[in-house]
Amino acid sequence: MSQSKKIETLAELVRERYGPDQQYDVLDNAVVRHILKHRSVRSFAPTPLPANTVQTLVAAAQAGSSSSNLQVWSVVALQDVAHKKQHAIWAKDQDFVRQAPLFLIWLADLSRNRLLAQVPEGVRIDGTDYLESVVLTAVDTAIAAQNAVLAAESLGLGAVYVGAIRSHIRAIAKDLRLPPYVFPLFGTAIGYPADGLVTHIRPRLPQAAAVHHEHYDASAQKQAGQSYDQTLDAFWKKQGIEHPLWTRHLATRLGNVSQSGDERYALREVLQELGFPLR
Amino acid sequence: MSQSKKIETLAELVRERYGPDQQYDVLDNAVVRHILKHRSVRSFAPTPLPANTVQTLVAAAQAGSSSSNLQVWSVVALQDVAHKKQHAIWAKDQDFVRQAPLFLIWLADLSRNRLLAQVPEGVRIDGTDYLESVVLTAVDTAIAAQNAVLAAESLGLGAVYVGAIRSHIRAIAKDLRLPPYVFPLFGTAIGYPADGLVTHIRPRLPQAAAVHHEHYDASAQKQAGQSYDQTLDAFWKKQGIEHPLWTRHLATRLGNVSQSGDERYALREVLQELGFPLR
Repeated sequence: MSQSKKIETLAELVRERYGPDQQYDVLDNAVVRHILKHRSVRSFAPTPLPANTVQTLVAAAQAGSSSSNLQVWSVVALQDVAHKKQHAIWAKDQDFVRQAPLFLIWLADLSRNRLLAQVPEGVRIDGTDYLESVVLTAVDTAIAAQNAVLAAESLGLGAVYVGAIRSHIRAIAKDLRLPPYVFPLFGTAIGYPADGLVTHIRPRLPQAAAVHHEHYDASAQKQAGQSYDQTLDAFWKKQGIEHPLWTRHLATRLGNVSQSGDERYALREVLQELGFPLR
Repeated sequence: MSQSKKIETLAELVRERYGPDQQYDVLDNAVVRHILKHRSVRSFAPTPLPANTVQTLVAAAQAGSSSSNLQVWSVVALQDVAHKKQHAIWAKDQDFVRQAPLFLIWLADLSRNRLLAQVPEGVRIDGTDYLESVVLTAVDTAIAAQNAVLAAESLGLGAVYVGAIRSHIRAIAKDLRLPPYVFPLFGTAIGYPADGLVTHIRPRLPQAAAVHHEHYDASAQKQAGQSYDQTLDAFWKKQGIEHPLWTRHLATRLGNVSQSGDERYALREVLQELGFPLR
């Protein structure tokens, strides 16, 4: 069993999420508390998953909204040990991908609809060929995956999103035998949290930086950023972790990426190779 | 009060979601049932929202996972009647956008991080300039929005995603006074369901079409598509609604879009105008 600090009341959850200086009146119920309790799990026990876990997570995912009911995603469940080991390497050598009994790779999938559409004469299926289709697909796939993550967490499992798979899309697409018009968008590693694992609710920016009323208003952002730097710094210090200020982290994560050689930043070319014209 | 058919047990929820011919063993708990109960609401009562609804939905949204903790979205809350009316027109004249007391427009927001990043000398913030950043942002924004939708539904509210706003991104970006590196991704209309509104759980494709094990496998898709055509057809007929088969709908929705003149299909150009280099 994991030893996540038992934070259960709404007031505690809000304080952990925003730090002690921010006050919000959040309406209370069990679903809201479940959502607010989320923390990513990056260390898993070898304990097998409950039977029917995949069916349950997929049912939750399919219950999410789907733009024009197009149902533009599918998911590959990896449970084979050697296969997960290979994917852990592709996901920036993150060992938890190997550890987790289940690694789901969520696919932006426009292939299935191209296969299934009953196309009348004179009609060409070009609605899959635009940047719009990639954006629509990314949105709908993430809606689905978030339902699955919340469902997993409700079963006592831990989960973490793995965007790092986009650093090896070419290799992963080949390994998963993806047809054209399909690409791997992100992974989710799922399993019981490792014995003794302590996880913490990571603070977020003050709401003033994230919410606008009627029109975009950046005037609160600088102040919110400074305040958040303090809150997040205190969060890391309490755990004894050395970590740069968040506003510095932004510069590290978003700076000079063109020199990184990371395949993520060739996504346009990679998607075109995988059959997406990106008009 | 809405008169949505009271479907509460897990077995009923699964049967409604997949039709009577598909059998799945889904693990039961209150969160899973809440997720499975989702149906979009497209007709709203004028009843005001509970105080603190926006704070609650934003707290739920911010509790979602964030890639590298970049927090790349923000949200505009529209509650002004005239303002919502204008946005209803932009959202393909869908009246429920005007009706709903709250219309949230979710923004892919790379501007805030560009403003807040403490950039050391010699570093250029180019990590926002790639197609990768648009995809990452779309994913993280949708994770956040889905948390907000589930939270809204837990408060007895109804919600619907509105992707149609992407048909008028230019006008909306101007109206919302968006700075460069921000674009409106989708909306969510939120309110109490209209009096007497009957909503139904819309069936989805059989899981065999959506789940793969270890490798992509399209072999079940044709059969699943045929079965789904029947299930969805029965769903519409039971409501007395004339509707083409789903596989025909796919062709209509995805066919000949290049002749539609819809701004969605100029998303590449539109995003470039809004400051996204899309490298």
